[in-house]
Amino acid sequence: METILRFRPEDLLDFVLRYMTKLGVPEDDANIVGEVLMSADIRGVESHGLHRLGSYYGNRIQKGLINPLSPYAIVRETPTTALIDGANGCGQVVSRKAMTLAMEKARNAGIGAVTVRNSNHFGIAGYYALMALREDMIGISLTNSQPLVAPTRGRTAVVGTNPIALAAPSSKQYPFVLDMATSAVAYGKIQLHEKKKEHIPIGWAIDEEGQVTNDPSKIKPGGHGALLPLGGMEITGGYKGYGLAILVDILCSVLSGGKFLTQVGGPGKPEPTGVAHFFMAINVEFFRSILDFKQQMDSMIELLKNSPLAAGNNEILIAGEREFELAKFNEAHGVPLIRPIVNDLIAEGEKIGVPFNLKPVSEDLAE
Amino acid sequence: METILRFRPEDLLDFVLRYMTKLGVPEDDANIVGEVLMSADIRGVESHGLHRLGSYYGNRIQKGLINPLSPYAIVRETPTTALIDGANGCGQVVSRKAMTLAMEKARNAGIGAVTVRNSNHFGIAGYYALMALREDMIGISLTNSQPLVAPTRGRTAVVGTNPIALAAPSSKQYPFVLDMATSAVAYGKIQLHEKKKEHIPIGWAIDEEGQVTNDPSKIKPGGHGALLPLGGMEITGGYKGYGLAILVDILCSVLSGGKFLTQVGGPGKPEPTGVAHFFMAINVEFFRSILDFKQQMDSMIELLKNSPLAAGNNEILIAGEREFELAKFNEAHGVPLIRPIVNDLIAEGEKIGVPFNLKPVSEDLAE
Repeated sequence: METILRFRPEDLLDFVLRYMTKLGVPEDDANIVGEVLMSADIRGVESHGLHRLGSYYGNRIQKGLINPLSPYAIVRETPTTALIDGANGCGQVVSRKAMTLAMEKARNAGIGAVTVRNSNHFGIAGYYALMALREDMIGISLTNSQPLVAPTRGRTAVVGTNPIALAAPSSKQYPFVLDMATSAVAYGKIQLHEKKKEHIPIGWAIDEEGQVTNDPSKIKPGGHGALLPLGGMEITGGYKGYGLAILVDILCSVLSGGKFLTQVGGPGKPEPTGVAHFFMAINVEFFRSILDFKQQMDSMIELLKNSPLAAGNNEILIAGEREFELAKFNEAHGVPLIRPIVNDLIAEGEKIGVPFNLKPVSEDLAE
Repeated sequence: METILRFRPEDLLDFVLRYMTKLGVPEDDANIVGEVLMSADIRGVESHGLHRLGSYYGNRIQKGLINPLSPYAIVRETPTTALIDGANGCGQVVSRKAMTLAMEKARNAGIGAVTVRNSNHFGIAGYYALMALREDMIGISLTNSQPLVAPTRGRTAVVGTNPIALAAPSSKQYPFVLDMATSAVAYGKIQLHEKKKEHIPIGWAIDEEGQVTNDPSKIKPGGHGALLPLGGMEITGGYKGYGLAILVDILCSVLSGGKFLTQVGGPGKPEPTGVAHFFMAINVEFFRSILDFKQQMDSMIELLKNSPLAAGNNEILIAGEREFELAKFNEAHGVPLIRPIVNDLIAEGEKIGVPFNLKPVSEDLAE
């Protein structure tokens, strides 16, 4: 059981603003970082939420490893495409710009695609795909990331968890929002099993020999062992997840001239990460009426939700559905943060003289 | 052991031409169908090759279930997009037109996207993605398909195996060509295990209760049981493969106003299948120099191939590599067809008075 504290979103955003501006981040950019990070906590993806504010962005800005001014530059631009150099700024700032640009292009030209090099961790991929829904477009967001995954037949972490996000608007039903790593599982889940001294399922990861293992202590990517790509070992289709991860790296890093695979840095590395992203917006109206599209999305979702259940289950879920339900609850009851994350934000704030003096709206025990 | 007969490509194409034109297919269209089907046999994907000529296309044309004239029509077109109605013709004919159109648009506008409804099985998805390589573009090809896969937490086949193909050009190395079903495995592999009375690996499929099974006889999608999506059961990430399959259906069927999920017919159904496709071409030169792109592709591929091997393996493969090697061999030694497929082509030809009077260039025993 862990204590969960809930905060008003505006209070948390105010703390992020004070914290980031103290580090030299412009006010507008600080708001973007806060909004993107908090959207993860609101949607139940705490691994990508405010707990990274100090440990990733704050620490790296203080060490001179992220440029707080995010002085990104559009290197090349056409009516449908753009290439942006992220100039080692905050990933959220350049990514929101890139997705906005992709949407502007899609509004006028039907499709917009923007690739970004020399960036940093951008939060949840889903955030940028979701932006497209505000204009009833299809949004796509991809990013490469530090190596944690072994290629099929390999035994070391060479490939990132390289997520794929796609959002598509619907009418009465929740929109479809896929936001998935191309690895079988997130590294955080393996760490959690190790902490709880539990075995991990076969298909999640391999040991330093490249053999499948159920022992979470054998997985320390960068040291020994690695995550498996989606599909697990080769016999169960792991080469497909590996292929999808490379697909992501092609559109993010090869198309932008950015860093790829083991060149991409992570939070522990003493140099800029060089993360690369790819964003696309598709204007549905260039193909057919958006109303018809949204109604057909509803029909497809209803067909899925009404299909026969496997024994022991009570609902078929659609990608994004659980996150929308969680967001609805959290927006009504406050943004949830577990006690260790709150303690961390307090400590990170103290380091630079920014007090985390927020009153939680509630404090509860939860798993 | 099975006998493999090898034929000259031009001889096989001539048979397809005689067979299809006899059924009322125009000569140019017959050549397209032959080339696409044969490309699968050449690349080692016999499940999607000439063995379907009679059993799928020929039979359905004779029953009036496919229109041999493939009278597709462009319903809507802009400089970057098009929507095509396949008019229930041969999937290969409208798909080659659609990908050609996507590439023309990408040549001028940077990106082209074409969606197709009311089509039929189009062969291997990779064929159309590969077309883009001729012009040094990135090619993407998606299709929905008859339901064989259960959604996560479901127990019946509601979702297609909905493949994703992406090809990207390289310089010295083979191009990257991903061509993967979003299911854990092809149904054909399960049938093969049943024939050989072998267990299937855990993670491939579920029985009629929705429980994972190693008994291939329990999987008869449409009757009972279903394939699992890529990732297998929920705990190993199957919901991601399920999400990817829906992503494919959105871009193919919802964007085109076509049939989706259980609406899509298969070879056994007495009505038009209504298969829907999506094609995209991305002009690399709109982002950066194609020479730089191709060199970076080489570097990425070399990094992967030189990374440490898991015990018991001797090579890390890149998507498409094995197929290029096979194609090189088969183009030099003749297109391989197993004896039962040759017998089937002879029988299908006899039905309509088109003799399969080809001399194999070789005849060998192989597994």
